[in-house]
Amino acid sequence: MKLASFEHDGKVHCAIAVADGLIDLSRAAPELPATMIGLIEEFPRLSGRLQDIARNTRAHLRTSDVHLLAPVPRPSKILAIGLNYADHIAETGREPPKQQVWFSKLVNAVNGPYDTIQLPRASHQVDYEAELVFVIGKRCRHVRKEDAASVIFGFCAGNDVSARDWQFKTPQFILGKSFDSHAPFGPYIVTTDEIKDPHNLGIRCFVNREKRQDSNTRHLIFNIFDQIAEISQVMTLEPGDVIFTGTPGGVGVAMEPPCFLKEGDVVRVEIDEVGTLEAVMTAEPA
Amino acid sequence: MKLASFEHDGKVHCAIAVADGLIDLSRAAPELPATMIGLIEEFPRLSGRLQDIARNTRAHLRTSDVHLLAPVPRPSKILAIGLNYADHIAETGREPPKQQVWFSKLVNAVNGPYDTIQLPRASHQVDYEAELVFVIGKRCRHVRKEDAASVIFGFCAGNDVSARDWQFKTPQFILGKSFDSHAPFGPYIVTTDEIKDPHNLGIRCFVNREKRQDSNTRHLIFNIFDQIAEISQVMTLEPGDVIFTGTPGGVGVAMEPPCFLKEGDVVRVEIDEVGTLEAVMTAEPA
Repeated sequence: MKLASFEHDGKVHCAIAVADGLIDLSRAAPELPATMIGLIEEFPRLSGRLQDIARNTRAHLRTSDVHLLAPVPRPSKILAIGLNYADHIAETGREPPKQQVWFSKLVNAVNGPYDTIQLPRASHQVDYEAELVFVIGKRCRHVRKEDAASVIFGFCAGNDVSARDWQFKTPQFILGKSFDSHAPFGPYIVTTDEIKDPHNLGIRCFVNREKRQDSNTRHLIFNIFDQIAEISQVMTLEPGDVIFTGTPGGVGVAMEPPCFLKEGDVVRVEIDEVGTLEAVMTAEPA
Repeated sequence: MKLASFEHDGKVHCAIAVADGLIDLSRAAPELPATMIGLIEEFPRLSGRLQDIARNTRAHLRTSDVHLLAPVPRPSKILAIGLNYADHIAETGREPPKQQVWFSKLVNAVNGPYDTIQLPRASHQVDYEAELVFVIGKRCRHVRKEDAASVIFGFCAGNDVSARDWQFKTPQFILGKSFDSHAPFGPYIVTTDEIKDPHNLGIRCFVNREKRQDSNTRHLIFNIFDQIAEISQVMTLEPGDVIFTGTPGGVGVAMEPPCFLKEGDVVRVEIDEVGTLEAVMTAEPA
């Protein structure tokens, strides 16, 4: 199943994405939780009903007629791992990490899958990072690697947009990773049952149709089960928490000379079986 | 005015703290927003009404009869600045930073002012950091230093509890700063009109009545207005966002030999005019 969030008449709606568009759950089943986090929390109880709706309801809206939001519009946490593909590490000139290097992106950075991405006034080194994203399905702590698959709700494509000047101004990445609009993900949450193997998905990034990143999630150094085992030692994970799993080689800052995004550039992130993001880079509004 | 959040009969309530206890706003004024973030957002419109209630209502509950929560129980963002008092920098053996060093604590770490703090199974180096905390009152971006006072809603005491083994396992602090229960703050939000000068407040931390930290917010390297100017270049700040402003010298990791918190230790953070936190360190529940 593919779940989406969209904005219509000033309100946020949840939807099931089907072949011919979106089934608006506020119309098809107004008794269901009205937020994506609510749906995820109650999904074990609701999945049969949602499957019925998906099979027996015609789409209410065309996807192109609404404003798609990030499928979890207000996650409680957004975590991201750095330096997690061998080719990306090689291009940064670093040693492969012995430890998982985690940082966070903040909620103001969340952005819809086709929304414009801001080139901030305060940064001149904005870069893309195509990433597989997963969404937590269950409240959990101390999850063993071998049990980690059971706490994942589904997958999205993500772009860990990075302002390199701010990322490297201090040893802490967070400001460079958290500019407004710099955490687009989506277009849908594809539930785990639809993904054969999350560790065998082609992942690509294009800037103006030029292929810049082209890899496969099988090259993750710490796979998503390792990631869940590590962070759940520290913190309780909750339904709707969003995890960015690292980017492959090919980022702009590693090109010679470095090549950053500029106004009008179109950035496209594709992940096999999961989906595609596409954004136009625009100046930060005055 | 002092605003609090508390739990009673399984529900979260907002309250005004007065001399003889708590005025439960769900009883005194059920028409008001039911969440602290809602109250902060609408405070410009509601402050007269809330002042009337504070003057003319008797407390419904004694503070000791309820479970006080962090005054913003689910902030959208928690930011924290590191290395921000000259004496703390000296004890870490570092150079004073030329740039503000920001990191984040995650929402799972939020803890009430008198709640126990967990000694996690995964860490053996848990440390205290007494900090002045402020809460954002207005949605804002690109705030100039000279306008920064206008976006602050109020102040709390905070303890930026830090698992040093995890903080220094990689260059990114976040995991060591985000264990469950490691971001206590409160006991109330003291609104800005009650604080004469946030840059002249005594700040102390005691472990089992032994004074470990004793400084004054006048020794902040980057003051709170500098802090708002910096982070608002990057991100939209929102009502209820929580900012930890740095800790003075005297942390356990800098003692010789280093001295970490152990089960049964009582950690007390005091900030003049703002309030006091007190917590017993306990083993992480099985």
